[in-house]
Amino acid sequence: MRARLVVLCWIFLWVAPALLGQTPAEVARQYTTAHQAELIQQFSEFLAIPNVAADPANLKRNADVLVEMLKKRGVDSRLLSIPASPSIVYGKIDVAGAQHTIVFYAHYDGQPVTPSEWEGGSPFTPTIREVNGEQRIYARSAGDDKAAIFAQLTALDALQEAKIPLRANIRFVWEGEEEAGSPHLEQILDANRELVHGDVWLICDGPVDQSGKQTVVFGARGDAHLEITVYGPHHGLHSGHYGNWAPNPAMMLAQLLAGMKDEDGRVLVPHFYDGIAPLTAMEREALARAPVNDQMLMGSFWLGHVDGAGKHLLELINQPSLNINGLSSGQTGARATNVIPPTATADLDLRLVVGVDWQEQQKHVMEFIRSRGYFIVESEPTREVLTTHAKVALVVRDQAGYNAVRTPMDLPIAQEVIRAVESARGDVVLLPTMGGSVPLGAMERAAQTRTITVPIANYDDNQHAANENLRLQNLWDGVGTMAALLEMQ
Amino acid sequence: MRARLVVLCWIFLWVAPALLGQTPAEVARQYTTAHQAELIQQFSEFLAIPNVAADPANLKRNADVLVEMLKKRGVDSRLLSIPASPSIVYGKIDVAGAQHTIVFYAHYDGQPVTPSEWEGGSPFTPTIREVNGEQRIYARSAGDDKAAIFAQLTALDALQEAKIPLRANIRFVWEGEEEAGSPHLEQILDANRELVHGDVWLICDGPVDQSGKQTVVFGARGDAHLEITVYGPHHGLHSGHYGNWAPNPAMMLAQLLAGMKDEDGRVLVPHFYDGIAPLTAMEREALARAPVNDQMLMGSFWLGHVDGAGKHLLELINQPSLNINGLSSGQTGARATNVIPPTATADLDLRLVVGVDWQEQQKHVMEFIRSRGYFIVESEPTREVLTTHAKVALVVRDQAGYNAVRTPMDLPIAQEVIRAVESARGDVVLLPTMGGSVPLGAMERAAQTRTITVPIANYDDNQHAANENLRLQNLWDGVGTMAALLEMQ
Repeated sequence: MRARLVVLCWIFLWVAPALLGQTPAEVARQYTTAHQAELIQQFSEFLAIPNVAADPANLKRNADVLVEMLKKRGVDSRLLSIPASPSIVYGKIDVAGAQHTIVFYAHYDGQPVTPSEWEGGSPFTPTIREVNGEQRIYARSAGDDKAAIFAQLTALDALQEAKIPLRANIRFVWEGEEEAGSPHLEQILDANRELVHGDVWLICDGPVDQSGKQTVVFGARGDAHLEITVYGPHHGLHSGHYGNWAPNPAMMLAQLLAGMKDEDGRVLVPHFYDGIAPLTAMEREALARAPVNDQMLMGSFWLGHVDGAGKHLLELINQPSLNINGLSSGQTGARATNVIPPTATADLDLRLVVGVDWQEQQKHVMEFIRSRGYFIVESEPTREVLTTHAKVALVVRDQAGYNAVRTPMDLPIAQEVIRAVESARGDVVLLPTMGGSVPLGAMERAAQTRTITVPIANYDDNQHAANENLRLQNLWDGVGTMAALLEMQ
Repeated sequence: MRARLVVLCWIFLWVAPALLGQTPAEVARQYTTAHQAELIQQFSEFLAIPNVAADPANLKRNADVLVEMLKKRGVDSRLLSIPASPSIVYGKIDVAGAQHTIVFYAHYDGQPVTPSEWEGGSPFTPTIREVNGEQRIYARSAGDDKAAIFAQLTALDALQEAKIPLRANIRFVWEGEEEAGSPHLEQILDANRELVHGDVWLICDGPVDQSGKQTVVFGARGDAHLEITVYGPHHGLHSGHYGNWAPNPAMMLAQLLAGMKDEDGRVLVPHFYDGIAPLTAMEREALARAPVNDQMLMGSFWLGHVDGAGKHLLELINQPSLNINGLSSGQTGARATNVIPPTATADLDLRLVVGVDWQEQQKHVMEFIRSRGYFIVESEPTREVLTTHAKVALVVRDQAGYNAVRTPMDLPIAQEVIRAVESARGDVVLLPTMGGSVPLGAMERAAQTRTITVPIANYDDNQHAANENLRLQNLWDGVGTMAALLEMQ
């Protein structure tokens, strides 16, 4: 009798979720609640593997570990590689009779780190801290973008434990070079078109809306970088003996950059806003319904003013932007010396919207520099170049840029994704584009697909900066969202 | 017979220079030619003792070594000290019946170093290299300003060996805090007024004219520093998600700095040129006679243009200047990330001429910053300050500034110094002021004296920068110049 009862209970427990009509998000919640401690432990071990481009051996370790994790879950998994580039981790689940193929994209590499800027000094020693009464885990890529990968793996476990069958074919494409601008992504995808094709690519990257609500985003801004170096004297000169006479490159650079934007942050580079594709009525309506978090964000970021002449953040990210990522010339602080520095350098990133080409945008900035009297070189200038031109700028155009992409919200597949996410999370914020950049165009071309972004990280995750973190509740919610998407028809 | 001859020869050799009427510069030349190898060895040992403010233990070693060097030469020597400041090395030679007292000022401390920027990686491993067929010695302070101290010690040796008697009382005042702006010099001198008083202070610092000719300079520009930090978001933000909306402090700083100068380098800060004392007829005449080295210098420094709207370097250093010593915000190059940096910082040095007060000049720059809409704080701003003001600038005013000084060229003591230097070096360049700064005012007040500058270093000594050096011929010539000045009546 007893043995029979145990067997019956056992069968009931395994079959119950399906029989009881529990949603994928519900079984995910039960799973993450029951396994919380071990999930945090597993996520920490994953975050502890350094994943920056400057450390290719460890970056490779991440990829190898992920292949094993997929195999452990019965997923047909391997690396998609080309020489001299981090591999893509690929996973494949074929479902008999499936009508659709859903591809889950995320990336396992992280932004470069400056350990001294991190509390505790190490970006790869994951640490749990409480913020406003909630737990967060701190480490490089906690939010961007290992969280998404870990949520997908955990959602698979939850569905498998609950014996909820998948209905579509599933593909995992986890990139290792996103933070470097995905320079080889298209090439690798091109070489594996059959493997990576799908009805839709779900881009699991970036943060949800600042209100904390789950967000579905239908595009991403494009991205282009350039580095500008201007020249003063060939070596540092005594600022007393030559100050007033030897041109100061820090001042030259300040004057050059200052002319690129007005006081409201509007870009003054000619043609910078040319060709922008207007938003559709549905996109404008979605924007109008989205939460306006600007005041809350200003308080959170300690800001007394913002750029944009009164426009909201969500409107502004539908415009191209020009941002200075870094400035350097001579030394500041305790190491400053009385010197006229030999050079001054600025790193710029240009964010792009649909209708603006990344290489054209780089050229517009170069034309602007020329219009300010600079002779432009693209490699270190010689003595002859420097002495025969009044002003010389070295402009290094990063070749890893790409254009913006926007998927129409009214496509059937788009509507299905919205329904799946709503089933998991209720009220959902729909945005025409995210502010950040993902090489969606390369994916769409190579995989002959559409892209829709479903982020899970908290907005205040210090993505791309020191003390990156993930609010743990975002991870648990994210597992639910991924479970619902994995279970799409 | 033989013993007598030897004694006679010996007497002749020791008495001969005086009997033969050899000038101090001539005996100095004989001495440095005869002892060249050991002098280079001794100078190298002196340069090998690190002498930066960040390393007070070694800075103190320099002072102790110098006291011993003076004592070895029979000079009454000691340290003049106050707590928490590098000591002055003081030396005193009283001459019976002397009418005048000549004070030799120099400094034994050097500018901060960034070893990675130095060829060979170490600023304190002196190295001899050949440049254009001439030997130079490379090390921090080779030119600025250990050369002057070593030349004075060697000139004493040459005069002593040649038995040429001194005619005036001599004082040595070698400071250890000049490169930090001499914040305690006046206080130490004030406490030792009797010891440091003289008819003239000879400031043995800085480079000779770029033509290579010996130079006598009758003043120095004053100096004031300030550091400006402007604020963006409280921590680095993702430049995609917030670019166009969150203000970028690097751009704010560029716009602020750009407004401080026009394209010709003329300062646009209101009142910056107020109150300048005009040059006298004798000063203007000296300037008109001085070599114009601008074209040669442009070639040497790889410059295709210079500031100043066509004015010569020598004219321009008779004007106040505003120079950016360093800029920093976020990261550039390989460490650049896609971030809106939280702050941007610039270090400025203001050079001053007679008639312009250093603290007023700092205030003029602060007023300019205010006029650009900034709320100024003088310590790290709080969240409340940042959120309640559109733009906030932290301005740290260095308290170690001082005013410019100019000694009239027609004073009797000035004419005597000119004659002594001409006796050693022939044609001499006379300049109303040097471009660099020395706290002459503090010296003049505390020692109740006048100041005249007699530099010996080559102009292209990379003073204040990496790979500082001294052309050895400048050292040998400098010993001659110092010998002539030591032997003044």
